[in-house]
Amino acid sequence: MNSRRDFLQKLGVSALALHLAPVSGWANSKNNNDVAYDGPVLRVAIMGLGGYGTRVAEAMQSCTKAKLVGVISGTPSKIKDWQSKYGIPEKNCYNYENFENIKNNPDIDAVYVITPNALHHDHVLRVAKTGKHVICEKPMSVNAKQGQEMVDACKKANVKLLVGYRMHFEPKTLEVIRMRKAGEFGKILFFQGQCGFKIGDPTQWRLNKQLSGGGSIMDIGIYAINGSRYMTGEDPVWVTAVETKTDPVKFKEGVDETVQFEFGFPSGAVASCLSTYNMSNLDRFFLNGEKGFAEMLPSTGYGPIKGRTNKGELTQPVTVHQTVQMDEMAGIILEGKQPVVPVDGNEAVKDLKIIDAIYLAAKTGKKTEINY
Amino acid sequence: MNSRRDFLQKLGVSALALHLAPVSGWANSKNNNDVAYDGPVLRVAIMGLGGYGTRVAEAMQSCTKAKLVGVISGTPSKIKDWQSKYGIPEKNCYNYENFENIKNNPDIDAVYVITPNALHHDHVLRVAKTGKHVICEKPMSVNAKQGQEMVDACKKANVKLLVGYRMHFEPKTLEVIRMRKAGEFGKILFFQGQCGFKIGDPTQWRLNKQLSGGGSIMDIGIYAINGSRYMTGEDPVWVTAVETKTDPVKFKEGVDETVQFEFGFPSGAVASCLSTYNMSNLDRFFLNGEKGFAEMLPSTGYGPIKGRTNKGELTQPVTVHQTVQMDEMAGIILEGKQPVVPVDGNEAVKDLKIIDAIYLAAKTGKKTEINY
Repeated sequence: MNSRRDFLQKLGVSALALHLAPVSGWANSKNNNDVAYDGPVLRVAIMGLGGYGTRVAEAMQSCTKAKLVGVISGTPSKIKDWQSKYGIPEKNCYNYENFENIKNNPDIDAVYVITPNALHHDHVLRVAKTGKHVICEKPMSVNAKQGQEMVDACKKANVKLLVGYRMHFEPKTLEVIRMRKAGEFGKILFFQGQCGFKIGDPTQWRLNKQLSGGGSIMDIGIYAINGSRYMTGEDPVWVTAVETKTDPVKFKEGVDETVQFEFGFPSGAVASCLSTYNMSNLDRFFLNGEKGFAEMLPSTGYGPIKGRTNKGELTQPVTVHQTVQMDEMAGIILEGKQPVVPVDGNEAVKDLKIIDAIYLAAKTGKKTEINY
Repeated sequence: MNSRRDFLQKLGVSALALHLAPVSGWANSKNNNDVAYDGPVLRVAIMGLGGYGTRVAEAMQSCTKAKLVGVISGTPSKIKDWQSKYGIPEKNCYNYENFENIKNNPDIDAVYVITPNALHHDHVLRVAKTGKHVICEKPMSVNAKQGQEMVDACKKANVKLLVGYRMHFEPKTLEVIRMRKAGEFGKILFFQGQCGFKIGDPTQWRLNKQLSGGGSIMDIGIYAINGSRYMTGEDPVWVTAVETKTDPVKFKEGVDETVQFEFGFPSGAVASCLSTYNMSNLDRFFLNGEKGFAEMLPSTGYGPIKGRTNKGELTQPVTVHQTVQMDEMAGIILEGKQPVVPVDGNEAVKDLKIIDAIYLAAKTGKKTEINY
């Protein structure tokens, strides 16, 4: 059991460094069995075995405090695949008809809901009733009203509700937040978030409003929205927005293609953001203060985050975001750890209020107040 | 006369390379007297001997085709300084009462108007009447109506009207324009212009609407406006804008502090721009296309422009912008040269129409059409 720990100590590699920057092979070689950790482990079932669910499952293989132990899916063949891939026992496999039975399963602590946005509300409410903790992918739902209902339901059921804000645990992002809090940028004046990619298959659920609840804002724009808050340390109080649609066939009514939006913050700081499904090369955060600046480029992609400030390049370690997220969320749920930036349901409701306001502002063309 | 040419040829330095990247000392050592050029020279009087006028005068000492020969100023002590510094004869010195006499001066070909924005209209109209060509600093005036009157007046007087769009001659900028025209970025989708600095002395003319005609938009925002056009190759057809004022004492009624504005172009491309007098570290252009991108950072400052595209760093030579501008403008006026991007009065009127629309959009909060 101790051979790996000894080996790492000889190499001068701290457990923390390994944790933040898992080296492929080692951390992946065995699942939670040979690492120097003997605390509680969060046993997680993933609901929704699509692209992102798969990414989370893979990342969880390197977790210390969290372990993938169950699945919920409507597709039996996917369940079979995951069972053999991740060693998931039959008794921890559910479908959308029977997953309420999870309440009787003592081997599952939490369910990570990674289904299409518009289904989160129903799924989270149903998971909450089982008494299991809930992790929900962002956006937590498709509007603030639904979001608040989810928060209330989890509170009533006395379960934790966390949301997949993986960037809240990313080391370079956290360093910029630390610098901002320490006043190293001076008074914050401006944030820019440019988030976009060119979306492919026109038949995918993300382009179906019934499932997605919207368009690019719901999927990629939310990074600029949430980022504007953790980068500035403030919540916007007004928004203006303008939508542009070049392909109304691919992007149907209610599915935004490109939205430019601006925020005003209580301090007088402002933000300019772009959310789009129609262009690549857009993944930049820029924070500007009276005494300095930070640029993250790329800022939220799955790969390595890069950044620089007026003091130079950011050198914090590269992580697999979802690995760190799940370990940290285990700490929050099992040990009451407090993250630097909240990842709970209330945090998500704020983003949903902003999204509501962006869509309203884009529709009316008017500067729209945001009340929390 | 030929010794310097021979020397440069031995070094393998082409006249063009020298022209684009003057080496301090050589090109500055003598004014137009020892360079390998025997074509016509544009003899220029500068009107307005302030900070930017001084910068132009210094840069012109390295010009090949343009020469500073006269001054127009209301301050006799400044005239004396310039006379001794640049060898300007008494007969080429004027003030604001008598400069119409320049019409009888055969040794001056053109007047470069570098007075406060709101005075350009009157000054240009008066210069046009003297029959001398006009170069006017940007913004050409404070609204499109005035701008059109200036264009009409110069046409009527049969003199050229050029505007100080120095970036239209900047090598890295021209390379990006070339790449865009050649389709190397694919269909253009997005432009971002962030232009700002923190303005100092609250008593300066730039913060007095009677002289400036506005605030940051008139001074620094115009770079994003004009840049959005030469970078995309299109003229915007709508604008939305939101103004933020954190210091209403320093930035009085009609003097904008920070304006965020968005453009829509006929192709469906959009732009997000920021203009501000309240923050540093803002001098970035970003052009995004279906196949590639260009980033200029800094994009319009007086110092070296830096840039990169999806193909790598831009390596075109560093220039003194105003030196190249004045040499190129001499070519346009004296030889009928056609610049890659227009620098005439009609180009400026387009920018002024956009500025009018930005201020209107910021005031009404409405998406505002722009008609040319």
